[in-house]
Amino acid sequence: MRRSVFFISDGTGITAETLGHSLLSQFDSIEFDEQTIPYVDTAEKAQSTVTVINERARLDGIRPIVVDTIVNQELRQILKSAQAFRLDVFDAFVGLLEQELTIHSANTVGKSHGIISESNYGSRIDAVHFALDNDDGARTRHYDKADIILIGVSRSGKTPTSIYMALQFGIHIANYPLTEEDLNDLCLPSVLKPFKKKLFGLTIEPHRLAAIRQQRKPDSRYATLRQCEQEIRTALSIYNRESICYLDSTHLSIEEISTRILAMMGLKRRLV
Amino acid sequence: MRRSVFFISDGTGITAETLGHSLLSQFDSIEFDEQTIPYVDTAEKAQSTVTVINERARLDGIRPIVVDTIVNQELRQILKSAQAFRLDVFDAFVGLLEQELTIHSANTVGKSHGIISESNYGSRIDAVHFALDNDDGARTRHYDKADIILIGVSRSGKTPTSIYMALQFGIHIANYPLTEEDLNDLCLPSVLKPFKKKLFGLTIEPHRLAAIRQQRKPDSRYATLRQCEQEIRTALSIYNRESICYLDSTHLSIEEISTRILAMMGLKRRLV
Repeated sequence: MRRSVFFISDGTGITAETLGHSLLSQFDSIEFDEQTIPYVDTAEKAQSTVTVINERARLDGIRPIVVDTIVNQELRQILKSAQAFRLDVFDAFVGLLEQELTIHSANTVGKSHGIISESNYGSRIDAVHFALDNDDGARTRHYDKADIILIGVSRSGKTPTSIYMALQFGIHIANYPLTEEDLNDLCLPSVLKPFKKKLFGLTIEPHRLAAIRQQRKPDSRYATLRQCEQEIRTALSIYNRESICYLDSTHLSIEEISTRILAMMGLKRRLV
Repeated sequence: MRRSVFFISDGTGITAETLGHSLLSQFDSIEFDEQTIPYVDTAEKAQSTVTVINERARLDGIRPIVVDTIVNQELRQILKSAQAFRLDVFDAFVGLLEQELTIHSANTVGKSHGIISESNYGSRIDAVHFALDNDDGARTRHYDKADIILIGVSRSGKTPTSIYMALQFGIHIANYPLTEEDLNDLCLPSVLKPFKKKLFGLTIEPHRLAAIRQQRKPDSRYATLRQCEQEIRTALSIYNRESICYLDSTHLSIEEISTRILAMMGLKRRLV
């Protein structure tokens, strides 16, 4: 079964998309055809969005699902006229919050991904540049300024995780690859030793690692299952001997890896 | 006025945080003290979360606000006993969706940031590595494979935007800095000419750019207002003459810049 879905917002669409996707993931027997329509912030755009929805309803022969985080009352009213099953996020919650907080909401558009305090923006950009400058062991002299140093074998997920954590949480994060040389020594590289408390290890199932490496360097020794097994076994023995927290990234999304690391290291999210 | 807020989830907490933050941003006269408690997936954790909330209620002298995306009925029941004003996201919407879709929800934990289809994961990681490999004009030989090539003067926001778009949308994005040399020539660098349709320009207010550069290289010519003004003026004249879409990043968040570029370039989000 298929069903069309629209995530509609007067801002970026991120809230509608995140919430909607989360709700719909509860119904996995249906295939949802999802589309985001952001920046619906005028009556004209609202009207043309209604046209798009109605056209889809006609083609599908069933009304689409709309997840709508539009704040403006007038624009919400226009959307109500669409032939859709509509989840109105502000209708559901803002009234309740107004009662609890005993004040009126600002009723202004898309504030959550819109306001920029310059200091907040600056610290986020700093975190991103820190992650990039300290990616893949490129530099090690700033490790004293890192909140976390991710370690793991090549292609265990260090770089995407680092970047996500920097972008979303403003965490200063470096990552260091455990190379074959490091692993042959069977102990923690000396450059990491002073920072043991900041270390977090990633591991991954050998079969999955071999598949990822195979894509990158087909038919290399680097991509053989045997090589992957050996590297991972050694990395794990280092984590265990040195009492380094670690996580298996095989079946986790980047979001899950990142939020679990944060929780396990007891770090607070700096940006929400 | 201050008010404590908890974003509580059996998964990453991202949905609760995103939705909650979006709702609360409508009440800007109140200072919210926000905390995310992810992975509340057992009765014990739910119970200890209740203890944390109640303790906060006692300290604050007023009940905290809880935004809760927990799926499991039993765990939600435990949370209900907390002294809190609770927005129950699944209660509000899942029943409605069940009626509309005429099936029961799966009632399983945190699926939206949890499921990994390996192909989806792979294409996301590919996009991140593409963005990193093609950052800051490092390489130009893969521009034929890029969906977008971001251009702009140094520190106009290209790198964080590229990374965000790769991570969140799976877009293949390169970025190229308009250097002083490029700008002196007053025309599009020849390496970019074959890809004019993929180009997207960033601009930024000279004062803001000077402040950002001042932090990076204090008291350099690079950071003077005069230099910033001149570079930006020239970049803008190139964008205009070459009919390149562009955006002023000064007052926009990374999320806004990214979603606006996507919309302006008519590209679909590959991942939700």
